[in-house]
Amino acid sequence: MSWRAAVLTLFPEMFPGPLGLSLAGRALERGDWSLQTHNLRDHGLGRHRAVDDTPFGGGAGLVMRPDVVDAALSQALPPGDRRAVIYLTPRGRRLTQADAGRYAEGEGVVLLCGRYEGIDERVLDARGIEQVSIGDYVLSGGEPAALVLLDSVVRLLPGVMGSERSGLEESFADGLLEYPHYTKPADWQGRAAPEMLLSGNHAAIAAWRRAAAEADTRARRPDLWEQYASRTRFSALPITAAHRN
Amino acid sequence: MSWRAAVLTLFPEMFPGPLGLSLAGRALERGDWSLQTHNLRDHGLGRHRAVDDTPFGGGAGLVMRPDVVDAALSQALPPGDRRAVIYLTPRGRRLTQADAGRYAEGEGVVLLCGRYEGIDERVLDARGIEQVSIGDYVLSGGEPAALVLLDSVVRLLPGVMGSERSGLEESFADGLLEYPHYTKPADWQGRAAPEMLLSGNHAAIAAWRRAAAEADTRARRPDLWEQYASRTRFSALPITAAHRN
Repeated sequence: MSWRAAVLTLFPEMFPGPLGLSLAGRALERGDWSLQTHNLRDHGLGRHRAVDDTPFGGGAGLVMRPDVVDAALSQALPPGDRRAVIYLTPRGRRLTQADAGRYAEGEGVVLLCGRYEGIDERVLDARGIEQVSIGDYVLSGGEPAALVLLDSVVRLLPGVMGSERSGLEESFADGLLEYPHYTKPADWQGRAAPEMLLSGNHAAIAAWRRAAAEADTRARRPDLWEQYASRTRFSALPITAAHRN
Repeated sequence: MSWRAAVLTLFPEMFPGPLGLSLAGRALERGDWSLQTHNLRDHGLGRHRAVDDTPFGGGAGLVMRPDVVDAALSQALPPGDRRAVIYLTPRGRRLTQADAGRYAEGEGVVLLCGRYEGIDERVLDARGIEQVSIGDYVLSGGEPAALVLLDSVVRLLPGVMGSERSGLEESFADGLLEYPHYTKPADWQGRAAPEMLLSGNHAAIAAWRRAAAEADTRARRPDLWEQYASRTRFSALPITAAHRN
């Protein structure tokens, strides 16, 4: 059975959107994954199908009602469905490449997209819904974040990237940014591609790339570099200790 | 003159996508912002309009050529255009809410979307292009990231959110996650909304929300909490020093 995504949203027409094209789109056509949308409006209350109301405690904006979201989740999740249920919110833990890999190994995901001020916290608590953020910025709703999460996962599904790419050499696979890339022409506007890359010496090229990845991570992402360096230091400790004896 | 976005991509049909609907879509229709796409393929070389070639140094995948990307940028950027030029890549610095605010205050952005292994580093260096990442995960291309960046900026443009929302109370505005939200019903499946929020005491509600935002930031995002706490500590220092004298 293929990997199944469901999206609960007030804007089902935003999907598949960019995921209907290119890598993800071809995989969708092949049936490597499926995408179902559920319109939260279908569970709205009253003549106007209201999904939101004013926040308790006052303040601007509207909050999505717990009863409406709960009814939509009950319909989208048949009993025994073991997919991860994820609410996309800047209040969540930050999505990482490791998360994408974990979701890809599961049966699929159910993504809950909020609009307005967000969703009543009680339904998130009651259902133990994972709260995930794609980054430290605020969006108009969860939908663009859902597209990003799905894109990051779908490319990791078996067969989607094909055998030409293992995913092992890319950014974050080993805690570093990926090394920089160069292609033809070898000389472009007086800028030569790094000589080493044209040497044909595979071991030296691998070492050059490793050093470039480390240097760029250190310069651009001191936070990642610190984690990487402390991990490397710890793993080297037993050898150092042995050497001292 | 309204805020102008340009996107250089191999998949112009992915735009405006979700940005054509809801908040961003209405703002696009009103002319609060504009979106122009440029197809990188139009600058491809030879009969097949090739935009990429194999990476120097070997390895899987293809790299987008510097001459092709440069030609596309020359066409998209008339002389004197002062917009920020941004390449979306996991190798970049991470996008923040402060960046979104800064971009919104400018004249617009020119977004460069890579596919395959990415873009030859020399054209990025030569043009001093900002490298920006929306998060620590890998996507099939820059397009979903461009949609996210644009969404985060467009909602901050004058008139887009309307007067009902200042943006001052949301996540990251003061270095904290936003507080949790609650709305009707006051009692839902035996779960009561926090009593304080129904008290009508505005000062006490503001204090409750502040404490909730601090507690959630501490529990969910120790990295943000550390920055916030050290800033708070430093800003309190002069007072402490005065108190000691």
